[in-house]
Order: sequence, then structure tokens, then C-alpha cells
Amino acid sequence: MQNIDTLIHGRWVIPVTPGDPVLDHHSIAIHDGRIVEVLPTVDARKRYNAQVENHYPHHALIPGLINAHTHAAMSLFRGMADDLPLMDWLSNHIWPAETRWMSEEFVHDGSELAMAEMLRSGTTCFNDMYFFPDVTARLARKVGIRACIGLIVLDFPTIWASSADEYIDKALQLRDQYRSDALIRTPFAPHAPYTVSDAPLEKLRVLADEMDLPVHMHIHETAHEVNEAVKLTGIRPLQRLANLGLVSPNLLAVHMTQLNDDDIALLARSGAHVVHCPESNLKLASGYCPVQKLLDAGVNVALGTDGTASNNDLNMIGEMNTAALIGKAVASNASALNASQTLRMATINGARALGLETVTGSLEKNKFADIVAIDFSALEMQPVYHPVSHLVYSASREQVSDVWVAGKHLLKERALTTLDEQKILQKVRVWNEKITRQETENANERK
Amino acid sequence: MQNIDTLIHGRWVIPVTPGDPVLDHHSIAIHDGRIVEVLPTVDARKRYNAQVENHYPHHALIPGLINAHTHAAMSLFRGMADDLPLMDWLSNHIWPAETRWMSEEFVHDGSELAMAEMLRSGTTCFNDMYFFPDVTARLARKVGIRACIGLIVLDFPTIWASSADEYIDKALQLRDQYRSDALIRTPFAPHAPYTVSDAPLEKLRVLADEMDLPVHMHIHETAHEVNEAVKLTGIRPLQRLANLGLVSPNLLAVHMTQLNDDDIALLARSGAHVVHCPESNLKLASGYCPVQKLLDAGVNVALGTDGTASNNDLNMIGEMNTAALIGKAVASNASALNASQTLRMATINGARALGLETVTGSLEKNKFADIVAIDFSALEMQPVYHPVSHLVYSASREQVSDVWVAGKHLLKERALTTLDEQKILQKVRVWNEKITRQETENANERK
Repeated sequence: MQNIDTLIHGRWVIPVTPGDPVLDHHSIAIHDGRIVEVLPTVDARKRYNAQVENHYPHHALIPGLINAHTHAAMSLFRGMADDLPLMDWLSNHIWPAETRWMSEEFVHDGSELAMAEMLRSGTTCFNDMYFFPDVTARLARKVGIRACIGLIVLDFPTIWASSADEYIDKALQLRDQYRSDALIRTPFAPHAPYTVSDAPLEKLRVLADEMDLPVHMHIHETAHEVNEAVKLTGIRPLQRLANLGLVSPNLLAVHMTQLNDDDIALLARSGAHVVHCPESNLKLASGYCPVQKLLDAGVNVALGTDGTASNNDLNMIGEMNTAALIGKAVASNASALNASQTLRMATINGARALGLETVTGSLEKNKFADIVAIDFSALEMQPVYHPVSHLVYSASREQVSDVWVAGKHLLKERALTTLDEQKILQKVRVWNEKITRQETENANERK
Repeated sequence: MQNIDTLIHGRWVIPVTPGDPVLDHHSIAIHDGRIVEVLPTVDARKRYNAQVENHYPHHALIPGLINAHTHAAMSLFRGMADDLPLMDWLSNHIWPAETRWMSEEFVHDGSELAMAEMLRSGTTCFNDMYFFPDVTARLARKVGIRACIGLIVLDFPTIWASSADEYIDKALQLRDQYRSDALIRTPFAPHAPYTVSDAPLEKLRVLADEMDLPVHMHIHETAHEVNEAVKLTGIRPLQRLANLGLVSPNLLAVHMTQLNDDDIALLARSGAHVVHCPESNLKLASGYCPVQKLLDAGVNVALGTDGTASNNDLNMIGEMNTAALIGKAVASNASALNASQTLRMATINGARALGLETVTGSLEKNKFADIVAIDFSALEMQPVYHPVSHLVYSASREQVSDVWVAGKHLLKERALTTLDEQKILQKVRVWNEKITRQETENANERK
């Protein structure tokens, strides 16, 4: 008998490994935060002597979900402005609200709400892009959730920095601070081709190559973006980034709803990753990312929710459902984006895109124990023929019962262990009142 | 003080009446199963003396959701066969399974599971089309859920009837049995243009006109259906139905993913209703229903989930979310299908399509008290700026806390009052095992 920290017994284990197996009555052995072994429960009982042993008799154990594109703190703007065309939404609502409210406190409280929501819906790792990344990084570390905290870069001044150089200086400071952290990574996050000019992008590319850091960027989100760039520069934004050397295995190209065959070939050739955000793209009527085509071309596609203000949740269970459904319609093929492919997008593909393939994204020996238990006992989940299909087509966020990050039990029977739900609700209530008052004033002024 | 049965106090009441008001701190007075008044809570306390008084301090009270297209009993096939092209799905999985398993018991147990799921996700009325409608009708009456039980008609023999004439005979019997029932209605439900020939359709049209019954039919679900019909008959299926006099205010045309401008003009002119089933259409890659175009043309559009086998749930909260998101993408306009329009599709538009406009679909004096309480207290629902937008973009089925049909409290703090959840689960487990065994044998044979 081997002494270990934790043994988790599942009705099924879905490890998200090659061949997409669904393992009946399997268990996961965990020690020092890492997976020691995934094995049949009968064998686990004989082989391991665990300090903590948990039984999940109606559950599937899956790898923690990876939300590959978020603006976590924007959860405080959830549902503030909906059903609006992109530019009205941005210019008259989101940007003024950000200008009015942005502060360390806003980012802290919004990110806290977001982390609570993410854990409660099975996300163990998120890839963020927002102001005050230092605040979000510190909080993620405290909460124990895995996070890639984007080092934002823009041409224009904001509350975070006043010039591209200052953005990059602050980025490097933050990167140094977390360079050996087990939970926090710091990808570069230049906002978009139309908000960052060539000089800082070139600088950033050199640094990213040198430090082997991912580069997380909104690219080809709308037809307007691509058309304006072509008018101005004669080339498409992706091509411009390629000319700058940025289209490489370090790139996470978010949205990508406007792709021609040349773009797809360029992505495939370069080894760049695409982050698909179907609900945000649909809600803002931005267009359709041709996911099956990208997968067929060999491009790695991860999944993200985008910020709460354009979704309006951070729920990766729901996002998988939407991705699988819209993926078939866009491909005109009911076999496109099957349940297993969709689950891979939400797990291992995200890990690969973020350079975390050896760390998380699947349930395999030596990876960190980032695990989610999905409860299949509710009648909405009956009968069960194929657990992976149920996960994508029938489950909802309330089926997430337990969550571990690096072996730490962060959600226990739907209760958060490192966050105080009541305190979060109190803080959010204050923000809700303040922002509502201001929004009412703004609406009156517009009249 | 007026004595009444029930008084329900909500944080908000969203009555789904003209102008789409959201009423702060309002209450609903109920007597003899009907709404007596919707009024401010302060006034309700002075005016009414209720036997039962319920407080919903963090909830929105909305009209019961109307699922305008279901095959309830198919819930026993949930997730049995996914990610398959339509004809493979039907020919190799659904039809053989139906042939193998169809019985009164199957329809009873499947419909029971479906009704439990529907109530738990806020549906108070569903429009069904399936075998053994007598069984489903009897069960719905017992459970207390409002139901339109489709009188199915097909050209070919099935376990339910052996000829078009027998289908119609059985239809009329069932119609007579429930003609004065408060909960059950019996629309005709000829399956589709390609499965019912002119003679029975003509007969049925005469009967539907005479008895003022809705006609519920799958129409223009796929391009294949339309193309084959045009090859065979020279005209599109909708035009053929119009020639037969069936395109009228009695018609509920389900799916309608293949519509040209002439089709839309015909629907608008005739007063026929469209039932949009976005998740099923996406999952089977059938195409996109142009909902905003239909609404702009003045066509009444209702919302449905379709059967569980192609969705894979009966969750109208989720279906509203999908409808609103895909509606914007299809219209290339982020303002299309806004939250209020989407809620109307899931409530009053469904009532209108089913001829139940004076009965249900909104919270108004004299209508039956078909009501759903949506709990806004979870952190996934914070902060709250616009309750209707939250309902469509942030809520999930677990936010449904309480449900009343005709004043009867059928779901109480998420517990069913007229259905035994444990017994349902037991029965479904037996079906699950039987069907799994058979499916495994079939798969082995195919090898």
C-alpha cells in the first residue's frame, strides 16, 4: 500500500486522453497536488492508502475546464447593456462605465465574483485580459484557482499605464513577480491589431520569444475590423501580425470570426492557436468562427466565454453546448464538432494553447490534479447512454458538484471553500447600487 | 378585504404585457385557479386576505413558459445517438428504437420524465406530437400540467394506427374525450408534408376549420425536404399546404429553416404561426430559421425545444438563451431578438399560436395562474440591472424555484408536488438498462 493524500472514486473518469476513453468505475490517486495514477476503483483500493477518500457514485470526473478568454472583472457589468450593436454597446455603455468605475477595488471585487462563478461551473483555469492584472493575479493565488493573467498592452493611456512603454515595463515587473509561481502564468495580452501599433508589437514579439510567453490577442473579431484594416494598410490584420513575426505557436488568436482559406492555411502552417468564443460572437452578431474547418486543417482550437458583459456568464458547461450546436450548423454537418471534440476544446486544447500541456487539461499521471466532478443523478441527466454526450448536450452548470485545483478541494458539494459567498454578494450589492444610480443618470442625460 | 386562495409576492413581476413592463415589488392575487389582479405589494396586503401567502423576495414572477413543440416520451432516448447526420440518426437509431420500444408504458414513463423536467425548468404548457397521445393526455391531467396533445396523423401504419382513416378516427375520439377539459387541448398533428398525403390533409383541414383546432406540423425542416418536394411536385411544401387550405391562423409550422421571401409573405398574409426550435435545428445542422425577419413581417413566432433526442433537454430557459443568441447572428444585428421579444416567444406567442391567448401566456386578470418564480439570488445572477435580460442571458434552469399551473403549486422550492421523483428515476433506470443492452447488441451486429 502506498500512502497518498487523496483518492477520488468516480462512476466514470473521462480523462480526455487520445482515443477519448470513458473509464467505468475508475479512481484518481492524488499526492502533493498531482495525479499519481488513474486506475480502476477495485485496484485503487488495494494499491493506495489515502488520507482523504471521496466517493462520487453518480458522477463523471473530468479535467478542470479551461476558459481561454475572459475579462473577469467585467462580471460587475453583467447585463448592464444588452441587445445593442457593438459600437453603441462599447461607446455609450462599456467604455464610459470603465472610465467611470475602473479601480483596483473594482477589479478585485469583479474578479472575485468571476472566480466564484467559474469555480461553481467547473472552470479551474482562466486566461484573462484586463486592467490591474496585478490585483487579479494576487486574488487568483489567494483563491487557489489557476490563472493566466494577461499583461495588457495598448497604444493609448488608461488608468493602468500611460504609454506602450509603460504597459510593457509593468508587464515585465508582473512577469518577474510570478515567474516561478505554480498557479499563475503571465502571457502578453496586446488588446487587438487596431489598438496596438507595430513598434510595441515588435518589442513584445522579441520579449515573448525570449521568455517563451504566449501572446493573447483579439483578432478578426468583426468584418468591420478586417475591412477597415485592409482599407488602411492594404492587408488583413492576421497577415500584418504574421509580417511582424507574431503568428507562431505562442499566439492565441481570439474570436477569428472572419477567416478566408489563406488565413486558415497561415494559422495551420504557423502552429498558432485559435480561441473560439461562440456566445459572445453570437450575442454581438460578430460572425461565425469556422471551427470544424480549423480543426480539419490541424489548427488547435480552445474555448472561451469572453467577458460577462457580452455573454452574460462565465459558464464553460453552457459554452461547450453552444460551441457544439453552432459548430454543426456552421459546418452544415450534424457530425461536426462532436461531444468529445468539444470537451477537448474546453480542456486539453486550452492547456496546449496556453503552454500548460504538461501541467493541466487532462487526467494523466504527473499533471496537477485539476478535476471537476459532474453529478449525473438529477432527472435532467436521465437516462445515461453516453456520458460525454450528456456533459455537452444535457448538463448545465448546476451539475458541477466538486472542483479541485492542484489537488485542493475548492468547491465541495457546490460550496466554495476559499471564497466567502455571502461577503461577495454584499460587495456586489454595493457596486450594483452605485452603478445603477450612475446608469440612470446617464440615461436621463441622453434623453 | 377580499378573501382569495393565494397571494404571491415577488421582487419583480414580469407580466409579458404590451410595453414589456417590469413591475417592482408587485404581487399576484389568485382565486379559483385564475389571476384576480396583479398589483403593488403594498396595495395587495390591504386589499386581499389570502389563505396562502408566499413571499419571493429575490425572485421574478413570470408567466409559465410554453414549449410549443415537443415529443415528450422521447426523453427516454436522451443522448442515445448524437453527432450523427439526420438520416443516419433517424434510420439507424431513432426509428429502429421506436419500432423496438414503442408501447403505452414507454410513452407513459417517458412523458412522466419529460413533465418532471419541464416543470423543473419553468414550462407550464407543452405542445406534444407522439404515439399514444391518450396516455400522455391522461398523465398530463393527473400531473396538472397544461398540455396540447397532438392528434397524430401519418400515411403509413404504426403501432398507434394502421391507416390515415384510423389515425383520424382515433384523433376524433380523443378530441371528444377532452373537449371540455380545462388543462388539455387536442390540436391535429399531421407529422410532415412528406409523410401525409393530400387526401387525409384535406379531410383534416375541414375538421380543423369546423372544430377550430390548431394544426401542428413539421414544415421546411431541412433543405433536403424542400428540394425533394420541388423535384416531385414542382412546388414547395408550404405552397402545397396553402393550396390545400391549411396555411391559416390554425397552422403551427414547426422548424421553418428554409424560407424564401415568398414563403414569409405567405405566412404573414395567412396569419399562420411559426414554431422556432433553435437547438434542434443547430444540432441536426438543419439550417437557420430567420426569426427576426418573420417578426418584422408580422408573423407570430413561438419557441419549442423539439424532442429530447435532438436537443438534448426540454429546458425553455436554455432555449430562450440560444434563440436570442442565434437570432442576432442570423440577422447580422446585435439588436435583433432582444430579451423581451425572446421572452414573448416563450410565453404569449406560444399561447397565441395554440389558441390559448385568453387562457395563459401572460400574467393578466382572468387568465389562469400559470406562473414561474425565477430566483435571482445566486451569485451567477449578480449584479442585476435588467431582470428580463438576466432571464434570457444569465439564468439557467436551476434558477426556477416554484411553478404554478392554474393556481396549483406544482413545483415548490424545486420539489415536484404531483410527481414522485424517486419513482420516476427508478423506472427510467430500468428503461436505461433495457435500451442500453439492445443498443449494444445492435452496435455489435453492425460491426
